[in-house]
Amino acid sequence: MSSPAWTIQKKRDGEELSSAEIHAFIKGLATGDVADYQATAFLMAVFFRGMSLGETVALTEAMLASGERYDLSSISGPKIDKHSTGGVGDKVSLILAPLAAACGLKVPMMSGRGLGHSGGTLDKLESIQNFDVRLSRERFEEELKLIGCSMIGQSATIAPADKKLYALRDVTATVECIPLIVASILSKKIAEGSDALVFDVKVGSGAFMKTRESALKLGRTLSQVSKKMGLKARVLLTDMNQPLGYAVGNSLEMIESIQVLRDQTPDELASGDLKELTIQLCAQMLELGGLARNTVDGRKLAHSKLTNGSAWKVFEEMVRFQGGSIEQIRNTALLPKTSKTVQWKAKKRGFIAKINTEAVGRLLVELGGGRKQAADTIDPAVGLVFHRKLGAKVANGEPIVTAHIPENADKTRLFELEAMFQGAVEISRARKPVPKLIIELF
Amino acid sequence: MSSPAWTIQKKRDGEELSSAEIHAFIKGLATGDVADYQATAFLMAVFFRGMSLGETVALTEAMLASGERYDLSSISGPKIDKHSTGGVGDKVSLILAPLAAACGLKVPMMSGRGLGHSGGTLDKLESIQNFDVRLSRERFEEELKLIGCSMIGQSATIAPADKKLYALRDVTATVECIPLIVASILSKKIAEGSDALVFDVKVGSGAFMKTRESALKLGRTLSQVSKKMGLKARVLLTDMNQPLGYAVGNSLEMIESIQVLRDQTPDELASGDLKELTIQLCAQMLELGGLARNTVDGRKLAHSKLTNGSAWKVFEEMVRFQGGSIEQIRNTALLPKTSKTVQWKAKKRGFIAKINTEAVGRLLVELGGGRKQAADTIDPAVGLVFHRKLGAKVANGEPIVTAHIPENADKTRLFELEAMFQGAVEISRARKPVPKLIIELF
Repeated sequence: MSSPAWTIQKKRDGEELSSAEIHAFIKGLATGDVADYQATAFLMAVFFRGMSLGETVALTEAMLASGERYDLSSISGPKIDKHSTGGVGDKVSLILAPLAAACGLKVPMMSGRGLGHSGGTLDKLESIQNFDVRLSRERFEEELKLIGCSMIGQSATIAPADKKLYALRDVTATVECIPLIVASILSKKIAEGSDALVFDVKVGSGAFMKTRESALKLGRTLSQVSKKMGLKARVLLTDMNQPLGYAVGNSLEMIESIQVLRDQTPDELASGDLKELTIQLCAQMLELGGLARNTVDGRKLAHSKLTNGSAWKVFEEMVRFQGGSIEQIRNTALLPKTSKTVQWKAKKRGFIAKINTEAVGRLLVELGGGRKQAADTIDPAVGLVFHRKLGAKVANGEPIVTAHIPENADKTRLFELEAMFQGAVEISRARKPVPKLIIELF
Repeated sequence: MSSPAWTIQKKRDGEELSSAEIHAFIKGLATGDVADYQATAFLMAVFFRGMSLGETVALTEAMLASGERYDLSSISGPKIDKHSTGGVGDKVSLILAPLAAACGLKVPMMSGRGLGHSGGTLDKLESIQNFDVRLSRERFEEELKLIGCSMIGQSATIAPADKKLYALRDVTATVECIPLIVASILSKKIAEGSDALVFDVKVGSGAFMKTRESALKLGRTLSQVSKKMGLKARVLLTDMNQPLGYAVGNSLEMIESIQVLRDQTPDELASGDLKELTIQLCAQMLELGGLARNTVDGRKLAHSKLTNGSAWKVFEEMVRFQGGSIEQIRNTALLPKTSKTVQWKAKKRGFIAKINTEAVGRLLVELGGGRKQAADTIDPAVGLVFHRKLGAKVANGEPIVTAHIPENADKTRLFELEAMFQGAVEISRARKPVPKLIIELF
């Protein structure tokens, strides 16, 4: 039996693979010694059999070793990044990167695009005209030195084995598998040159992990593998049973983020959870980086840099450095917007009891603001603004959201879209407890 | 999610696939709508989740539908074939096909080549000079009409989906999976045009199925799926804890078969189990085909046709029809033989208690008489003649086998080969019970 087939069989039979076997398998993907059809059989065997901590570390190392690893040691200051497992309305990075930089950290942030119900930071950034997410390594490092943060896409030279495996996982039902998820996240995050990582593991109806148990397992594995690979790590399990903040949609989320950065959120819109989570994450990063003695001090520092305009100033500098339109971020009315909006209203009085948040994410895709397939183009302007979220009291006929809809949506289409929305929201007579924002921290 | 990915996910999650989903997936393999890397992820998911009877029937139908299906209804008489799951020294087909034909059945037999430790009927037939196993469909049918049996290789037009899947299974550790094995066997066997099938499911150290439980499961599934697809079926579970008959090796097995067909087995060599199993299988075929009221009558008929020379006459006619050398089969000294032989002897006195029969099969591969890979060429002359089998009393230094060895085997090599052999044979002080030849019949 060939050596890749033997590796597959060992995994299939539940034996532990050696580090050398995993490295050879991943290396073989690039050299052609391991065929794609062998990789996918292996992935499915891993789906069923799992991987030990040691195997997951080896897989992460092997995928990391398949590409370039940035060395940021010449840049002074603690290099710390945050990774979110993805959700709906999760625009934290847009605020957190400049905020952490304003507090003195270096934030080398490489992000992805939205796919399926989950949004992507790059798409949100690109709602700003000419914002360039494809900087060279030199420009990336220069920006980190000068400004303290840089927000770019993953370069093609980083973890090519992960790119290949991820594309295969996507079409073979092997995405939902913790060791594969962990190795994919960490091989990329470690390659970008951070010293420490803070993970925001989402749990709930809009998250990849629907249960606390699976999210905990993912969070623990992320933490353990990071530490084995020499990085400090902190994990927050946070609620994703409703969109974060009030906006869902690329340009709308950019506007909300700018409002938070300028401390100018309109009274009638709720960005409280977004602000709270961002400050919490920043406090963890500051403590990890040694710029705060503890997270209480970290919170104070983050709060002051957010409210005194320092974070906004870093954001402006970053947008300028990356070629984006300063006019648009100063006057958000200039950001992409739809010409049509419509309000979707409560069908009865009561309390908002449940939001199927994944369905909200899919509704954004239906509006044209997200992707079904990686090659799809998106409309940055469309989306939803939530006037009421979980626990809110609503009167019959009271608007729950304002939908920013595409020009070409006719009556039938609008009817379908609203039906999707109404199906995602549950109104109950009695008020139900609202899930805690931060569920666990370790 | 694409439709193949969805099918994979359903199977991964243990849901039952519909017949339409399975047909679409197998059809997609040919059209390119299903990529090889999706096929292998699917196969691994089936390995872990199994398949229901309905799913296995649908998979068999779909693979059958991927190619040509012979219609032998214009040929008079019951068309019945035998399939063995493969073993060591299993030359039953060489005797059974002409014997069953001599009894009045039509035997449309398509066979395979040896791979790994297990031998193949085509290789044994080709030890006869010019024997042609690649007949056209017309010649195959003509031979069935004229002679009553035809022994050929599987044509490329039969079950191409199975060929593709089998090649993928072979390199992705997804061979050992009962629904996949059953669909692979049956799609080919049903395509050849039989009305009924007799399965010889081997169990033991030289068989694919090492345990009675797994062999039973395979046998039951073969029987159930055959019946669902409109064929009569009979299953024998038979012992493969030692080679069948005395010879292992292509030309040597042809010689043993000819001796049985001519009722001329040398007194000092034991073909009893081979003869018994052949007659049993023939009796089952005769009963299934309605040419015997019961298997007792079937045995009688088979026995008489074997001992009165009728089976031998059919064999001669078949060899002539398929272009093989009549001189060689009449005078087996003309069949391929090595110039060197060596005897491997008992290292102590006692009783032969165990034969690692798979190791014997691998030893044949080492001698050059079998294949590690499908593309390997083989030496028909090499092999082993067993003088003593399970239960036999041996004196210290008494020959157990005569090894027919390749010309170029030097002393070191011979030492290695004998060590392999000695490692495969266990001699005990007390006699151990010999496994029953026919374990189960249903």
